[in-house]
Amino acid sequence: MSLIKIVRTRMELRSVVSEWRAAGTAVALTPTMGALHEGHLSLVRLARSLADRSVVSLFVNPTQFGPNEDFEAYPRNELQDAELLEGAGCDLLYAPAAEEIYPPGFSTSIEVSGVSKPMEGAKRPTHFAGVATIVSKLLIQCQADFATFGEKDYQQLQLIRRLVRDLDIPTTVVGGPIVRDEDGLALSSRNAYLTENERSVAPALYRTLRSAAEALGQGATVSAVESRSIHELRTAGFDVVDYFDVRNPEDLQPLGPGRITGPARIIAAAQIGRTRLLDNVAV
Amino acid sequence: MSLIKIVRTRMELRSVVSEWRAAGTAVALTPTMGALHEGHLSLVRLARSLADRSVVSLFVNPTQFGPNEDFEAYPRNELQDAELLEGAGCDLLYAPAAEEIYPPGFSTSIEVSGVSKPMEGAKRPTHFAGVATIVSKLLIQCQADFATFGEKDYQQLQLIRRLVRDLDIPTTVVGGPIVRDEDGLALSSRNAYLTENERSVAPALYRTLRSAAEALGQGATVSAVESRSIHELRTAGFDVVDYFDVRNPEDLQPLGPGRITGPARIIAAAQIGRTRLLDNVAV
Repeated sequence: MSLIKIVRTRMELRSVVSEWRAAGTAVALTPTMGALHEGHLSLVRLARSLADRSVVSLFVNPTQFGPNEDFEAYPRNELQDAELLEGAGCDLLYAPAAEEIYPPGFSTSIEVSGVSKPMEGAKRPTHFAGVATIVSKLLIQCQADFATFGEKDYQQLQLIRRLVRDLDIPTTVVGGPIVRDEDGLALSSRNAYLTENERSVAPALYRTLRSAAEALGQGATVSAVESRSIHELRTAGFDVVDYFDVRNPEDLQPLGPGRITGPARIIAAAQIGRTRLLDNVAV
Repeated sequence: MSLIKIVRTRMELRSVVSEWRAAGTAVALTPTMGALHEGHLSLVRLARSLADRSVVSLFVNPTQFGPNEDFEAYPRNELQDAELLEGAGCDLLYAPAAEEIYPPGFSTSIEVSGVSKPMEGAKRPTHFAGVATIVSKLLIQCQADFATFGEKDYQQLQLIRRLVRDLDIPTTVVGGPIVRDEDGLALSSRNAYLTENERSVAPALYRTLRSAAEALGQGATVSAVESRSIHELRTAGFDVVDYFDVRNPEDLQPLGPGRITGPARIIAAAQIGRTRLLDNVAV
């Protein structure tokens, strides 16, 4: 039985947070869609290292799912999530109903051009408008000093950094490193969809990213590395490689086709069966 | 020589406002594009009636002007504006440069569907995204308790109400009544563009709106009132009537073609020469 405090409305959220802040207590928010794993919990611990109080939001946001995606099937277990959060040092769980977030007549949408267009944006055309809108709402509702997001969704993280700067939201965005299973697979709520056989294929994504980073570091060209990596993933058992891109780590513009001359991020998405996996590494 | 305090950066703005708010002082923001007239000053007085401190922003926002509109020609006179504001009881003028509002790489845009689509939205396709984005930024930058906007731009006011509700911006939006010249012409910075002859035609807009409201109140149908009013405006000397619409005062959905059965707002835009005039009345 969890003892963590749970609030359901933005009024309650604001009331608790503004009391904390009025007392000079810094607050850090970690937005989640629940189905928590060690990756989320590491972001809660990061939040607690930045601020005296940790708030976690739990909201499976319908507007960031496409029409044929897994909104209905997305794993939900609030009680278990609340227990995990308590163990990680979270002080307040904000778990609003959909009507609290999207009241009747809701009609506002936030677009971030540039960084939102390639990769996930090309694959999921309405996804990032959904993300930008809900994240803005949560940050404005909570008025936290800090917010932590995982580097696992690297494009999302860069989009949120841009958004927060552009809208002058007074919250400092902090990215947390990817947490991995022992065999290298990045933790994700969607890993639960993998069959045993698919799960054995999955670590090839990180393995391929690491060898790609190494090859780029040794002077291989972007075009050679990208095409070899896609081939490696297909050979390892991935059914579709949506993208495997070497990009500028800030604005996500493509690098190459030649050698890289500065920092880069390799970002990939690939499917095994019906499950899409995302991962990325720094170069 | 004006003595009013002027700040140019959002950091200075936030620093002053957060000191006031920490001392328990309520703050009201009035966003303007300068070229101030009695309409703006009435919004500053309204702000001072709601809160202990009034902040006015002065920023001619390029993104709400279309490519063939009057951004360059828009009247600018900061010194005179500052003097007028001091007389109206404003405590702080926030007059940022364009680079302060739109730093390099800026790429976020806010869309409000529904209320932004007809009338001005149909006539000026990018206008309301520009308005929604700048108003969100100013409200988030200032963190005021209240913000005052004129009913003169009625569609804009309803869009801002929707936007603030949808994004949970913790500022109460208050509309101020239209201020008119003795002959009924709604005050507008763009009235300065009118020639003497055009100025003598202009009051027909309000006159026509008032007779339309009276006719609707007496049971005339929306379609009859709309078409007769457009004819009246053309006869009075307006060159183009962009729209003359009877609409729901909240969501701005069209009413009619028959009699109205509840509250309505008549909203019109018409051109004399190269100048567009906007006005509206309640029914």
